[in-house]
Amino acid sequence: MIILVCNDDGIRSDGVQALSRALDALGDVYVVAPDREQSAAGHSLTLHRPLRVEEIAPRQIAIDGTPTDCVNLAVSGILPARPGLVVSGINKGANLGDDITYSGTVSAAMEGTLLGIPSIAISLVGRTRFDFAPAAEFAARLVAKVLEHGLPPDALLNVNIPDRPRGDMTGVRITRQGKRRYGEAMVEKTDPRGKKYYWIGGDELDFVCDPGTDYAAVIEGAVSITPIHLDLTHYPSLSSLGQLGVKWP
Amino acid sequence: MIILVCNDDGIRSDGVQALSRALDALGDVYVVAPDREQSAAGHSLTLHRPLRVEEIAPRQIAIDGTPTDCVNLAVSGILPARPGLVVSGINKGANLGDDITYSGTVSAAMEGTLLGIPSIAISLVGRTRFDFAPAAEFAARLVAKVLEHGLPPDALLNVNIPDRPRGDMTGVRITRQGKRRYGEAMVEKTDPRGKKYYWIGGDELDFVCDPGTDYAAVIEGAVSITPIHLDLTHYPSLSSLGQLGVKWP
Repeated sequence: MIILVCNDDGIRSDGVQALSRALDALGDVYVVAPDREQSAAGHSLTLHRPLRVEEIAPRQIAIDGTPTDCVNLAVSGILPARPGLVVSGINKGANLGDDITYSGTVSAAMEGTLLGIPSIAISLVGRTRFDFAPAAEFAARLVAKVLEHGLPPDALLNVNIPDRPRGDMTGVRITRQGKRRYGEAMVEKTDPRGKKYYWIGGDELDFVCDPGTDYAAVIEGAVSITPIHLDLTHYPSLSSLGQLGVKWP
Repeated sequence: MIILVCNDDGIRSDGVQALSRALDALGDVYVVAPDREQSAAGHSLTLHRPLRVEEIAPRQIAIDGTPTDCVNLAVSGILPARPGLVVSGINKGANLGDDITYSGTVSAAMEGTLLGIPSIAISLVGRTRFDFAPAAEFAARLVAKVLEHGLPPDALLNVNIPDRPRGDMTGVRITRQGKRRYGEAMVEKTDPRGKKYYWIGGDELDFVCDPGTDYAAVIEGAVSITPIHLDLTHYPSLSSLGQLGVKWP
């Protein structure tokens, strides 16, 4: 069975290579990933220009597009057969809380899910050092379990692994998506020509650490596994919104 | 009360200008929008570089960043006071079904919601002609109702308006998010130098037209209003995933 490995940091990143090596014993692993970093622009299909596909090594295919493009083209015909699993990562940095709506790593797993393939996004939660080895080892263990038991239809797994030695891990938790705490902090500066510019306040994004959330798990040294689906409908509002009473024409 | 208008097509686009004019009677309208088109890259905060802010006309502020940046900076201090409402659009093209996870227009409304401000995303569903006037008129009517009744907390409205004359509209429906139908169509071509390149299959993205969905509404000529929230947790899986039995270390 083919396991498709993708990411948003680019095919040459340490995280995707550690992941593909770790999964090697579990299936026919193909890496189809962007030819360069796509963290910021990784959420859409490229429809306005054609894409170049290059096999840079056996079963290592680079595409000049987004993570979504990579999964789409891989499933549409680049691979010799339809993959049985999509694994995206290992991302260099967390994908927690509301931020997952902006994540390139998670968007690759979303594309797999939309194409009807069980999908997993894996991120390494750290800031300074990034040791992908323990996370890759855990990823292989998780993938083996998913291949054995399957996943709920329409749900992907968003996995965040604290960047610490295996012996310091405190377990595995099934979690719900947490919430980011917004600082609304803006920093105003003046350049040498007297013109103002602005920084969005720091990069120390803070989260509400409610029990049961992804954030609470990783802060306490545990692996967080959050089941994610793509139906964003707020069902409780479907009836109450009728009270808006807006008509047209 | 300040109404913040944003978009992802850029501050000079017809859609955002039609929207801001239509809302002018309902509050103090400020447009804070990207200085250029950001449809593809509009989903993240810019943290690695500072942002330039330019008032290109009274209450028209252009920022060299994403729609998310614009809403974040506007709320953090660019505006004279905290806005009471964020309205994003009018987008040139639909934002329906699963595609909203990739939408710059919707991401601006997501950012408003995350900052605790009632938010609305408005898109014009069309392909060839784009007449923003009827959509802007409807937007003003909807905003007046939202200012009167408020919105459910943590939910934004994703509004899609068919591009047809007001008299041809068939009403307003509160809908749930539909699903895209994936074609997995890839087109392989060869360039003049004999090298292959690939198109992701067409741009005629197709949707499953289930009753009650956003897609069903617009296809039948009605305005679609979908309440959207940002908690993507698939709650039914929280208990069943324990059966995976994955442990670490």
